[in-house]
Amino acid sequence: MSDTPTQYAFGMIGLGTMGRNLLLNMADHGFAVAGYDKNQKQIDLLAQEGKDKPVQGFTDPQAFVQSISTPRAIMMLVPAGPIVDSVIADMVPLLSPGDILIDGGNSYFTDTTRRDKELAEKGFHFFGMGVSGGEEGARFGPSMMPGGDKDAYKTMQPVFDAIAAHVGDEPCVAYMGPGAAGHFVKMVHNGIEYGLMELIAETYGLLKNGLKLNDDEIGAVFTKWNEGRLQSFLLDITKDIFAFKTPDGDHLLFNDIKDEARAKGTGKWTSQVAMDLQAPLPTVDTAVAMRDLSKYKELRVQLAGLYPTDEQPLTEDKEAFLTSLEQAFYFSMIITYAQGMNMLANASTEYKYDLQLATIARIWRGGCIIRSAFLNDIYNAYQGDNNLAHLLLDGKVQELVKGAVGGSRTIIGAATAAGLPVPAFTSALGYFDAFRTARLPSNLIQAQRDYFGAHTYELVGKEGVFHTQWTGMRSKPEAPAGPATNQPPTTPPEPGVKQSNEETTKPKL
Amino acid sequence: MSDTPTQYAFGMIGLGTMGRNLLLNMADHGFAVAGYDKNQKQIDLLAQEGKDKPVQGFTDPQAFVQSISTPRAIMMLVPAGPIVDSVIADMVPLLSPGDILIDGGNSYFTDTTRRDKELAEKGFHFFGMGVSGGEEGARFGPSMMPGGDKDAYKTMQPVFDAIAAHVGDEPCVAYMGPGAAGHFVKMVHNGIEYGLMELIAETYGLLKNGLKLNDDEIGAVFTKWNEGRLQSFLLDITKDIFAFKTPDGDHLLFNDIKDEARAKGTGKWTSQVAMDLQAPLPTVDTAVAMRDLSKYKELRVQLAGLYPTDEQPLTEDKEAFLTSLEQAFYFSMIITYAQGMNMLANASTEYKYDLQLATIARIWRGGCIIRSAFLNDIYNAYQGDNNLAHLLLDGKVQELVKGAVGGSRTIIGAATAAGLPVPAFTSALGYFDAFRTARLPSNLIQAQRDYFGAHTYELVGKEGVFHTQWTGMRSKPEAPAGPATNQPPTTPPEPGVKQSNEETTKPKL
Repeated sequence: MSDTPTQYAFGMIGLGTMGRNLLLNMADHGFAVAGYDKNQKQIDLLAQEGKDKPVQGFTDPQAFVQSISTPRAIMMLVPAGPIVDSVIADMVPLLSPGDILIDGGNSYFTDTTRRDKELAEKGFHFFGMGVSGGEEGARFGPSMMPGGDKDAYKTMQPVFDAIAAHVGDEPCVAYMGPGAAGHFVKMVHNGIEYGLMELIAETYGLLKNGLKLNDDEIGAVFTKWNEGRLQSFLLDITKDIFAFKTPDGDHLLFNDIKDEARAKGTGKWTSQVAMDLQAPLPTVDTAVAMRDLSKYKELRVQLAGLYPTDEQPLTEDKEAFLTSLEQAFYFSMIITYAQGMNMLANASTEYKYDLQLATIARIWRGGCIIRSAFLNDIYNAYQGDNNLAHLLLDGKVQELVKGAVGGSRTIIGAATAAGLPVPAFTSALGYFDAFRTARLPSNLIQAQRDYFGAHTYELVGKEGVFHTQWTGMRSKPEAPAGPATNQPPTTPPEPGVKQSNEETTKPKL
Repeated sequence: MSDTPTQYAFGMIGLGTMGRNLLLNMADHGFAVAGYDKNQKQIDLLAQEGKDKPVQGFTDPQAFVQSISTPRAIMMLVPAGPIVDSVIADMVPLLSPGDILIDGGNSYFTDTTRRDKELAEKGFHFFGMGVSGGEEGARFGPSMMPGGDKDAYKTMQPVFDAIAAHVGDEPCVAYMGPGAAGHFVKMVHNGIEYGLMELIAETYGLLKNGLKLNDDEIGAVFTKWNEGRLQSFLLDITKDIFAFKTPDGDHLLFNDIKDEARAKGTGKWTSQVAMDLQAPLPTVDTAVAMRDLSKYKELRVQLAGLYPTDEQPLTEDKEAFLTSLEQAFYFSMIITYAQGMNMLANASTEYKYDLQLATIARIWRGGCIIRSAFLNDIYNAYQGDNNLAHLLLDGKVQELVKGAVGGSRTIIGAATAAGLPVPAFTSALGYFDAFRTARLPSNLIQAQRDYFGAHTYELVGKEGVFHTQWTGMRSKPEAPAGPATNQPPTTPPEPGVKQSNEETTKPKL
């Protein structure tokens, strides 16, 4: 490649796994592209993998910027957090108003909202985009979730449509919505990913420690499931992992891996934000907690010694159990996606993203980590009714759920009796059984909160909030309650008793 | 009460329920105290309830401040958030360096850390203190969790010791640790509170919808449990709620209350911060999610219609079930406290609070919402071993757990089969069964993360991190994998492959 400045159509800042592979993907589609990284090793690797392709690496930021034809389009793929702000600060003096700057990393959505505003004020077109599919997705076809400046997206659309994964003719990329919509959708994607991975791990635990299947037999189960309605990228790679042996061919490599899960934090964000939005996401919460719990290796070994299992068999009938387990997995998987879609619906309202859930399902069908056959059913559900209040309301989903939930009950019953942990399975069933309860016991919680904290409660069929002195004020906290006072609820509450008993902080955009 | 300025020993800003009642508590113990509120109605209520007591209300902040003998000690009990900063800003010009300012509200702990620094720089003694016990506790004896400026605490100690709840001779108040330790401990208290309340609610659901007991029978169960090892403030007030009728005596008042739980946010904070600390807190997470889920009333009613229960009986033998349910509740309660104590241990290390878990258990035995007989066992466990790594390691706790966990398995099995939601019960059992698993299936998660994201993994018995190309890079994401490559793990990882695959953001102090 020559030294004379060439006009490149697109620039990538950050040539790690994702940046380098996206760039090569673009080059494969005929776009002349430039890459920038401070680390010469990354430049060398790009040159090596980009041999005979219209791709050039730079370690000099100015030469990099000048090599890109204006108005420029540049993406950053650097670690989320302060590094992104630092790169933006370095780049802004080198760019021109009207240039497009894209954050393709896993940035936290409120940071994206902030950067969006700051860069718009400086005359730049900024947008945050979630990219899913890992190394292979980046290289051959990711799922992409752009949001923010819509004109900038439209300028990039031909490039994105070309490099994205495709399902049939349709590229797995679409405009998500204004502001940080793209990164928000990516965050929820990653939360669902945690949930599904936890379900697979618990399934593996049951097959190994419950049914006592050997690795080949377990691999065969995952392979078979992946050929049916459970088909998904995650099961596909799991089947591969169950075929990958150590160099000496003695055993599966992954059996040598520590059972201490790590995390980059996006699943945790999803759970935390869901709580701020008051969108229940228990299966993702459970997956996060289980990754954290797995880190306490020493303690687990100690506790295993102190609280041994009594080794009761999980079941007498392996085949029947496997049938139930497939149903249980399918049911729990549906519930996990449903929790995520509900969170997106909440966020769309709260942050005015105007998310199109059918579009999101559509672009998740290919390229991304959570791609699966079931996403077609999700797509159909929201395509049929854009305002579907919850996935569980859809007619087809109802059939699928009713046909599978029994298997979940069977599995949970057996695992619970046998002492095998299935927290994600139980979180999904608990969500379902609670959501289909017209009258929950939560009125008791409201009574208790008013009793000890004067937090007030609402009455069925009445407006306003009420407070009751539930018992004569006891002279000592531990003394038995005086006679129950038949005091009617007071309206409006006394001074000092708050009218609103709800104080939920949502992250400010 | 005269108009001439009097020298008061202590001042309270904010005369809502908590502030007013704490002030009256102090007056009852012989301290001459002043209260300040902008709202004349609060002043009038204070005057009414404080008749013949050495307590004076002010609407003029300057007169209020001047009425307090120097060096002053003033507490704020105002809503958490920006109001606290606003009150501090108003007060600082009126105070003198050396004065003590206490935040007794439910402030978020990082705000407390910030205020601690800011006020120390201005020469004031600030500390954040958690106060638990609700209206009655504030009035007759709360549990208090001060932290921060230790000299300021020592100055206040005689007042606190006098007004706190007592268990035997011991006041339920003690210095928690530096900085925001007090508010942090209070936050964890509130998280445990959410978990215990959810367990009680689920129990109520089983008794009512499962065993079909009437209200009197349910009340009798709670009353009986409260006389035994489950004795607690929460069960005590629950028994009262089950005796409190509407004015016409027709039915229990709480049956008219909406089944939509509200929350002020502290339980949510506990879950969110636990995730940042990587301390698994699934039962609190579940309680938060369930409060959020209960708000979707319309959707629940719809789903109840679409997914009806088949009304199978929960059990044939009510008495046996009740025995198991008592065990299940006891077990789950122990696990809930254990999760909280573990979070405190993590925070103590992370934030250098040097928390004494025995002291925390000791002061929680009286005055606070989560006070219970079991806190004695927690106290004994940590008193016996200050460095106890987890409550489940304690010998006595082991006995109690082993004797009760079977009941949990029974209840969960029955509820799961009958379609009744028990998410908190299952979260507790899942935590226990996972924690006592020496080899969890989490190695599969690590293999998957490395497969799709090159996030690297660790090998048992080896140092460092490794990456594997799990299969030949497929030309299209959906194409079947090529033959498994027997490629050994590469060390060290290639450029661009991160060494550290852990990125957890803990709230900055």
